[in-house]
Amino acid sequence: MAVIGLGSMGLGMALSLLKAGHAVRSSDVSERNRAEFETAGGTFAANPRAAADGAQIVVSVVVNADQTRAILGGDNGVLDVMKAGAAFISCATLPPAEARGLAAEVEARGVHYLDAPMSGGAIKAGEGALSFMASGSQDAFEAAGPALDAMAEHVYRIGDEPGQGSSVKLVNQLLAGVHIAAACEAVTLGVKMGLDPQMLFEVISNSAGSSWMFQNRVPHILDGDYAPKSAVNIFTKDLGIVLDTARAENFPVPVAGAALQQFLATAAAGMGADDDASVARLYARIAGLKLPGEGA
Amino acid sequence: MAVIGLGSMGLGMALSLLKAGHAVRSSDVSERNRAEFETAGGTFAANPRAAADGAQIVVSVVVNADQTRAILGGDNGVLDVMKAGAAFISCATLPPAEARGLAAEVEARGVHYLDAPMSGGAIKAGEGALSFMASGSQDAFEAAGPALDAMAEHVYRIGDEPGQGSSVKLVNQLLAGVHIAAACEAVTLGVKMGLDPQMLFEVISNSAGSSWMFQNRVPHILDGDYAPKSAVNIFTKDLGIVLDTARAENFPVPVAGAALQQFLATAAAGMGADDDASVARLYARIAGLKLPGEGA
Repeated sequence: MAVIGLGSMGLGMALSLLKAGHAVRSSDVSERNRAEFETAGGTFAANPRAAADGAQIVVSVVVNADQTRAILGGDNGVLDVMKAGAAFISCATLPPAEARGLAAEVEARGVHYLDAPMSGGAIKAGEGALSFMASGSQDAFEAAGPALDAMAEHVYRIGDEPGQGSSVKLVNQLLAGVHIAAACEAVTLGVKMGLDPQMLFEVISNSAGSSWMFQNRVPHILDGDYAPKSAVNIFTKDLGIVLDTARAENFPVPVAGAALQQFLATAAAGMGADDDASVARLYARIAGLKLPGEGA
Repeated sequence: MAVIGLGSMGLGMALSLLKAGHAVRSSDVSERNRAEFETAGGTFAANPRAAADGAQIVVSVVVNADQTRAILGGDNGVLDVMKAGAAFISCATLPPAEARGLAAEVEARGVHYLDAPMSGGAIKAGEGALSFMASGSQDAFEAAGPALDAMAEHVYRIGDEPGQGSSVKLVNQLLAGVHIAAACEAVTLGVKMGLDPQMLFEVISNSAGSSWMFQNRVPHILDGDYAPKSAVNIFTKDLGIVLDTARAENFPVPVAGAALQQFLATAAAGMGADDDASVARLYARIAGLKLPGEGA
């Protein structure tokens, strides 16, 4: 098996595959995480093609459509060395139309394509406990099965057509992005009104205003910890996909649009690489508020 | 004790007080729920003043600041008959500044004021299992205690000053309103992309895009059931309070603003009295989508 991309997610997934007893080769444009991967028994390759040569399953764990396209068909792309009947598992968050286009190219070569965006974060990746929102043919699911078994706690089988998995991920990201922006807006408004943010967190977490993201991200604000667990730039990208896709569908998404503008403002203010809870710092800076660990 | 307002919340709270062994009088501008209240042992009174005469605790369960003000100081208001040391518990969602103003008036008469907006819905009201986000003096909490004990599962004691409870409720309503609008936007975008909403509900409920409101309201869409458990008009009101209060604080809340516009559009399209999941019907009608139980 091959894992292309050794970021925090790809490393965890590669380690899960190794733990399950598979031989794993990997490549990455940088040397990040190479030592940890090799120590665990993996083989680092010079490029995607070298990693994928002869592999029955290639797992692509990169950020966007351009990177996925380069892994497939670039100078050292994997498609020329993958055999008919092998499986390409695409885990990036892609526009559904891109996923359909890539799948058509891959399947024209006799290689199965699984549209398999994921959710769960680096810790769950390392535990083999990710959730995949996957779509593809019966054959694609079967060919991808050994890798999914090692990496996933849940595989939501969305449908038979590539693009459907990406559509569900897009809906999830719309909600996740709106909920982060709303959490940051709500907590800072509370601070502006003189409320204690720790108290707010406790009360709202047990009330109808709670969300998965509220409970996950507000502690970053309370700790004043903006080291990126997931960066602002991820959501300018993902909500960008939401807005682009909705526009292509002639469908208005004004709430997601408002949230995207707040992520863009946060990135514009220099915090794009910081944790996405930094949207709270944007509101705080605009209004001259003091958040935990931050100046007024 | 007296409960003023016998809507679905007030009735449940009155029944909880009766169940706890208290004598309860009640009044309401209409006769709604009178029979059920009387059957359970309550005494229906002609107006707030008659209900409150001699009561140590008056619980005000109405919709807004105007109604609360009328209960206190109107022609048949309760303030003239409440004794010094009695408690007035205000449960409506009020602008924090209104809560502070009302509290000053009430306390000037020697009556304790508890700023106690609640969360939980009619079923929890009937079970004595509401949550209150309450603020007020130590004396106000003590005077209100017997009623809170019978009505509440949790009393979040926010602080010593009236207005603080209303501020927390406002933050909760900002989040709740945004989450409902986002849930409706997300599910209908999913339908527009060809996804099955039942499948979306199951996957997203177990993913990072979930929220309390997503899990509570999306089933209404799946059932095609828009009989009002909580109406669109409640959120045009509550997000209106959020926007007004934020503006008075010179604080921008663009995500809440976008959500409010969608509730207003839903009300403008004739669905103001329907369940707040009707925001999904707004998106569906705009885009010509068929939702469960609805025409295309």
